[in-house]
Amino acid sequence: MASLLPSSVRRLIDAFASLPGIGPKSAQRLTFTLLKGKQDDLDQFASTLTELKRGTTFCAICHNIAEQDPCVICTDTSRDLSQVCVVEEVLDVIAIESTGAFKGRYHVLGGVISPIDNVGPEDLSINALERRVTESAGQIKELILAMNPSLEGEATALYLTKLFEPVELRLTRLARGLPTGGDLEYADHMTLIQALEGRRELKRA
Amino acid sequence: MASLLPSSVRRLIDAFASLPGIGPKSAQRLTFTLLKGKQDDLDQFASTLTELKRGTTFCAICHNIAEQDPCVICTDTSRDLSQVCVVEEVLDVIAIESTGAFKGRYHVLGGVISPIDNVGPEDLSINALERRVTESAGQIKELILAMNPSLEGEATALYLTKLFEPVELRLTRLARGLPTGGDLEYADHMTLIQALEGRRELKRA
Repeated sequence: MASLLPSSVRRLIDAFASLPGIGPKSAQRLTFTLLKGKQDDLDQFASTLTELKRGTTFCAICHNIAEQDPCVICTDTSRDLSQVCVVEEVLDVIAIESTGAFKGRYHVLGGVISPIDNVGPEDLSINALERRVTESAGQIKELILAMNPSLEGEATALYLTKLFEPVELRLTRLARGLPTGGDLEYADHMTLIQALEGRRELKRA
Repeated sequence: MASLLPSSVRRLIDAFASLPGIGPKSAQRLTFTLLKGKQDDLDQFASTLTELKRGTTFCAICHNIAEQDPCVICTDTSRDLSQVCVVEEVLDVIAIESTGAFKGRYHVLGGVISPIDNVGPEDLSINALERRVTESAGQIKELILAMNPSLEGEATALYLTKLFEPVELRLTRLARGLPTGGDLEYADHMTLIQALEGRRELKRA
């Protein structure tokens, strides 16, 4: 019975529970952990929250979140200017950067086209991407469409493919197939079909 | 690569990740959700955090968290004074209260005896429980030991059983067995053994 709890405790539980992926039970647990801690820690956490957006900006080139505009990636002259990896979110940039396998630049769309959620192409940084490609005057040679393998991700990739059809530009998408460490037995149909379709030749006949 | 992120963003990710049950990926997700939101929401969340402990106290009788001391349960004269349900944490009080099946009072230990975590009986509200029983002058007739069915919970229950051995007092513990909706096929050995041991007679021979 939540009404047994002091209102200040209930408010924090509600605040946590309003965040994605935190259910009411987890929200309770988090709140009681903090309640056992020191007031100093609470104040520190609070100031971290209020300060979150301060000293934070969006890079005008790639729309990534950054401390300065343009961001460290876009100002890094050692990076390959010919490749732009188009991703949905900032977290995707971090995921790809952490592999160390990509040396080009990024473009963060800020979401995917999703009619259900009322998100159209105009809500994303697609216009900016188009401008970026045009203004590069041929320097950008490839767009890697690295959307999530979801329905909305596919739709967004399709939209971009059509949009850039008249432009002389290589368009690629990330490979589909079995994930490393995955189990063929437990793979879903779509993954198996795409793993078969995208099979690599080991030896010619 | 976390170093790509502005330091204010990294700080909030770290703050979230220091909470129990929140891994680095969830911490990132939570932070970026908040980053997309309004500054007002951040300020609100922050003030909820700093205000958490204000207007919050511990009930001197049952050690439950409360807005006033003694708490609403301990001051509720309609409740059965003869039964005290001894629980580990405040959240356990909420869990039992939400069933509506218990009309006695509570005693919150504030944890369990756990030598590994350096928690001894003196770190819990066990002295206070002893005093409470003595001072009730026979009014408390039963202690329901409602610790979690864990090693530490068992150890704590055992300690309390020995402690109250000389006192004229009924000691009970919560029943063990198959959880409702559980599957016998998937039950662990200990649960099955305890379900067999604690079996109820439906018809006498």
